This record gives sequence, structure tokens and C-alpha cells, in this order.
Amino acid sequence: MKNIAVLGSSGSIGIQSLDIISKIKNLSIAALSVNKDIALLKKQIKIFKPKAVCVCSAADKEELKKWLSSQKLRIVVYDGAEGLKKIVTLSEIDMVLFAIVGSAALIPIISAINAGKDIALANKEALVTAGKEIMSLAAKKKVKVLPVDSEHSAIFQCLNGENKKQVKRLILTASGGALYKYKKDFSKITVEQALAHPTWKMGKKITIDSATLMNKGLEAIEASVLFNVAIDKIKIVIHPQSIAHSMVEYIDGSVIAQMSNPDMRLPIQYALTYPDRVEANIKPLNLCGISKLEFYEPDFKKFPCLSLAFEAAKIGQTMPAVLNAANETAVNAFLNKKIKFSDIAKIVEKTMRKHKIIKNCDIDDLIAADIWARNYAREIL
Amino acid sequence: MKNIAVLGSSGSIGIQSLDIISKIKNLSIAALSVNKDIALLKKQIKIFKPKAVCVCSAADKEELKKWLSSQKLRIVVYDGAEGLKKIVTLSEIDMVLFAIVGSAALIPIISAINAGKDIALANKEALVTAGKEIMSLAAKKKVKVLPVDSEHSAIFQCLNGENKKQVKRLILTASGGALYKYKKDFSKITVEQALAHPTWKMGKKITIDSATLMNKGLEAIEASVLFNVAIDKIKIVIHPQSIAHSMVEYIDGSVIAQMSNPDMRLPIQYALTYPDRVEANIKPLNLCGISKLEFYEPDFKKFPCLSLAFEAAKIGQTMPAVLNAANETAVNAFLNKKIKFSDIAKIVEKTMRKHKIIKNCDIDDLIAADIWARNYAREIL
Repeated sequence: MKNIAVLGSSGSIGIQSLDIISKIKNLSIAALSVNKDIALLKKQIKIFKPKAVCVCSAADKEELKKWLSSQKLRIVVYDGAEGLKKIVTLSEIDMVLFAIVGSAALIPIISAINAGKDIALANKEALVTAGKEIMSLAAKKKVKVLPVDSEHSAIFQCLNGENKKQVKRLILTASGGALYKYKKDFSKITVEQALAHPTWKMGKKITIDSATLMNKGLEAIEASVLFNVAIDKIKIVIHPQSIAHSMVEYIDGSVIAQMSNPDMRLPIQYALTYPDRVEANIKPLNLCGISKLEFYEPDFKKFPCLSLAFEAAKIGQTMPAVLNAANETAVNAFLNKKIKFSDIAKIVEKTMRKHKIIKNCDIDDLIAADIWARNYAREIL
Repeated sequence: MKNIAVLGSSGSIGIQSLDIISKIKNLSIAALSVNKDIALLKKQIKIFKPKAVCVCSAADKEELKKWLSSQKLRIVVYDGAEGLKKIVTLSEIDMVLFAIVGSAALIPIISAINAGKDIALANKEALVTAGKEIMSLAAKKKVKVLPVDSEHSAIFQCLNGENKKQVKRLILTASGGALYKYKKDFSKITVEQALAHPTWKMGKKITIDSATLMNKGLEAIEASVLFNVAIDKIKIVIHPQSIAHSMVEYIDGSVIAQMSNPDMRLPIQYALTYPDRVEANIKPLNLCGISKLEFYEPDFKKFPCLSLAFEAAKIGQTMPAVLNAANETAVNAFLNKKIKFSDIAKIVEKTMRKHKIIKNCDIDDLIAADIWARNYAREIL
């Protein structure tokens, strides 16, 4: 039995992962966490009977404890950032699925790895912020870091049984997001327009990142650290159909691609069952039913966030953390209708230009850079 | 150093394999064979200095021996079917690349496996004729059978690191050959029309088989035995661009595909260097430079050879051998302008209908069925 903690269980990935775990006999839920949706957490507790849960605030914790008592359920309740750090270290847990958005996942990821737990990572910001540190700690502690993102799961699958020294390039596909074919003024794009993703149903933050293509930039940085491949060996290709989820090109010219209908349940399940594959209730891919698969060069000028991400990756050190923190702040402001769509890239760029890189940085430096970038970005909003 | 015997060194695959071997430092040529092109064999002997060669006729052998003597070259010369059986067993040889067309390769393949040599197989007819027997002998003798066909190499690559029990389907792609879009009377197709393959440059026999789609049917039978997958788990998909060379669908819904520009040097090299990949002078795949990848259901009515091949595979026993032998005879007759293009399928079907299946057949029964089918097909030409 593999006992799994799902952090962020009320989100899109969290909900799907619980559904998958409920259907696979040798997987079980050991712990859950939510940010705000206590009502959903209560439903999940009734179904999955976890050993422990974590909520955001002390007030939510007190309310939940009363409810648990009324239900005669004995479940440990943690709260806040300290609670997340603790819950991932529980001895009952074998694997932690991080379905939390943003760099808030960083500290609990480090805790989980230090406690020897395998990691399934739907969160990309932590790897962008402190990828080298996470991966070297994971190697030291001999824990697996399994990607949940469809693109990284694809690359992970395309590397199966291969010699990583014989990799020539990683080819990350991008649907292009909601605005790839949009030809009008980018400053006038509404939140609703930017949230209308053509192929994937996801959370709001990642859907906006898809519209700016920052998502693909963050994924390139993430792929670079996850698979230990230099950023200039990562190629972005626009693939509007979202069927080929990513590819690996080898030195002999062979390209291995992973394909499926766009359905996050597949990469979530693969991370949970790896190295095994298990039957899934996913619509089989019918290539003959798809009129065509297309691939285009991305437009770096129209989507400056993509260039900024590659620039940050090349600079390295604290710069990817700054890129990510400024982006989170800017996207949040856009979702709250405080800035224009086209301001997102401008805020990220201004924050990057202002940042003084810290060399040979450790986790504390990265967290400090993250906080500095959030504050600076908020100032210039 | 891996010492390789290349049988069929004057053909399309043979010539390319010698070029590849000459460029990879830990590969060398130990033996060569040709059917008729003694002039080319002489050139190859001068370059590669093999230990032994095999030619078709006693007359060619005598001529070659005189020439070798005049060149002061000490090389053993064999001839005929018996010669092929012997040359593959030479102690200097580690691997035999079978680039001979037709079921004539069967006996030397058996000899090579019995002698413990790894096999690189560009010949598909032997596997169609006696696939189970070849594969079970190879398993017993612990020798590798490595596919050289681009489709089977693709599947082989897509199985890397995977659990074969978790395979749901093999998806064999087909360019569609020269006539896939041809809408006129199939009985009036000329040899020249049928030889005009849109994406692959190959020998005449296989190019005609591509035009009838018999090639894909033979490949399905071959894939079934090579990868031990039931024929009804093999799907044919028409893919006119010949970029995705074949795919494996797993039980979780994930489809792994192998892609490259159509260039036989890649699968040849992979068979020779497996499990390693080595840099190759092949044009890198630029997906953004290809307008689209398309996939269609094959038209079994327009291409009856495809149905016949699946039928023969389902019947099994001696029937695939009969299908293949009748097809070889009919294609030869078409190339010699003795029958119409549309007669190929008719001759194969008539021969299959007439055949009395031999159950629990051994190699001798399969060879007898092959000879019977050739004779019968010639009778009804």
C-alpha cells in the first residue's frame, strides 16, 4: 500500500488525484490539505478518512476540530505554513503530492524530502525558485521527484529506459493558451478572455500563465532542473491540439513523443503508480479522428514572458525566483483587475532589471529574493 | 569491437549499413554477401576487407576467387544457400544483419541463431513465414533479434524501459505507398506508377508491397511475432508524412511514438548500436517546418492485401507462410509485367483459399507450405 498526502486537495489537480487514488487498490490517502475550501475538505474527510489534515488559518482549524468532534472522527488538524511543514513528515506517509499553486510549496517540499518522502510535483513555482537545491537534496535523500505536469510527465516517459547522456534536446509543446491567435491590442484583453483556454481546464493562475506563455517559460526552467538539461537544449514548440505533450530528441536523430487526449488524470496517475502503468478511465486517443497535428515556432515578441523566462534561466542564481515571484504578484493583480494583461510582462521585466543577483545562493537567499520581488512588484503595480 | 556480417550488402539497406558501420568506431565488417552484383562486392571487399564473402552461384565464386588472388586478398568465398548457412556461423561474427529480401533468409537466420549470433533483421518475410519458430529459438539461444524496419524499430524504441504486459495496442503507421490517393482503375497501374513511393526510397519488391499495402500487412504479422502481441491488438494508421514511424499505446491511455525524418539510416544504426544511441549524420526533425501530421483509417476494401494479411495472421499455422510466398511470386510476376497490379491480391487470395493448413507445424512444414504456395501461385498466374 502506498500512502499519499495530497496537499491542495480542493484544487483541480487535488480533486482529480483523489478520484484516481480511490480507484487504484494499492493507493490510499494518508493526509489532505486545503487553502480555503473547508466545506469540500469535510466531504473529502468523510470519504477518505485521512490520518491528518492541514488548513490555512487557526480559525479554520478550530472550526474543523469542532466538526470532527461532532462527527466522532479522530483526525489530527494542523494549520498554516508550519502545519504544512509538519504534516508532510508524518511517518504514515510514503509520497506527497504537491498540488499547491505558487512558491508557498517550497518549504513543505524541502521538509518532505528531508523526511524521505517521494514527491509528486504538480507545483512548478518551487522548482523554478529553487530547482537545483530541491533536486540535489532529493538525490542526497534518495527520494523520487515525479512530475505531474503533462509536459514533464511526457518527457519523463520519453526518457524511460534511455541513457540521459544521449539526449540532444527536450521539445516542450505548448497549446499556445487562450490568446495565441489573438491579433488585437493585448492591453485590452479581459480576465475572461485570458481564462478561456482552448484545450486544458486548469486553475486560474496557470491559465493566465498559459495565455502569457509564462507557463511554458516556467516549464522550461522546471524541465531544465528536473532532467538536468541546459536551458539552451530546451525547445518550445506551439502545438494547438495538445495531443503530443512533449518530446525528447536523442543524439541519433530519433524523437520520442508522448501523446494522449488532453486529460490531467493521465500524468497524475502516472506519477502515483510509476513505474507501473494502470488502466485508466481516459478516452483513448484516436489519431484518425483528429484532422491533423500542427507544430509552430513560438512568437517570442508577442509573448515577452517567454523570453524573460529563458533569460532568467540563463542568468540563473536568484533570477528565476525573482521572475516567478514577480509573475505571481502580477498575475494576481491582473485577476483582481488592477492591471492590464500586457502589464504582466512589464512588471516581471522591471522587477528582473532592478534585481541584484545573489551568487552561490542558498535556500534562504532564494526565499529572500522571492520576498523582495513580490514587494517590489507590488510597489510598481 | 562488434563484428558484423551483412547479408545482402549490394542492396539499399546493405549499402547504407556499410556506410554506417564505416563511421562508428566499435563496429566492423566481418563478412558480406551479395546476390548478383559482383562488381559492387569487389569494391566493398577492397574497402572493408571482410574475412569471408558469399555469392549466389558457383560461377561467380570461381570468378571472384580469381580476382581475389590477383588482388592478393585472402578471403574465404562461399556460394549458394549452403554458403549462406555456413558464413553466418563463422566464429569471428558477433551479429548478422539480414538485408536479403524474401523468405530465402529463413534458413541462414536459423543457422545464425543456432550459432548464437545476434540478429539485425531488415528481412520481414522470414518472420512472416516462421516468426514463432525464430523467436522461440532466439529466446532459447539468448540471442537478440533487433528490428531494422523503421516501423518495428520505432515500436522497439517505444517499448524501451516499459513493462510489455502494460501494452494495450501497437499502432503501425503506413505512408500509404504510391497509390493511396489513386482513384482510377487499379488494373491499369503500371510498374512505374507502383514504384513511385512518396516518402521512402527502397528496393523494388518492398516498394510494390507498399503500393498494395501488403507491406503493412506483413509488418503487422512481423510486429505480432517480434513483440509477442496478438494481431487484433495491432492497428494500422495511414500517415502520409512518414514522420511518426509507429507507436505503442499503453493501458493507461498513454501513447509513445517514435519520430524522425524518413531515413533508413536511423533504424539500421539503432539495431547496430543498441542499446546505445550514437550521433548520426541525419537531417534533424524540424516539426515546425512540417505543415502538419495527418492520420487516417486505412481502406481495407481498396487494398485487399491488407485484409488478407490480417486474415492469414488470425488463421496462423502455415497460412502466413502461404500468404508471403504467394505474394512474392505475384509481385515478381507484376514486376516482370506478366500480370496486372490488381492481380497480385487475387493470386494471393486464391492461393490462400486453396491451401490446406498444417497444424502444429514445424520449420520443415513451413518451408513446404512456402514451396507449395510458390508453385501454386505460378500455376495460376
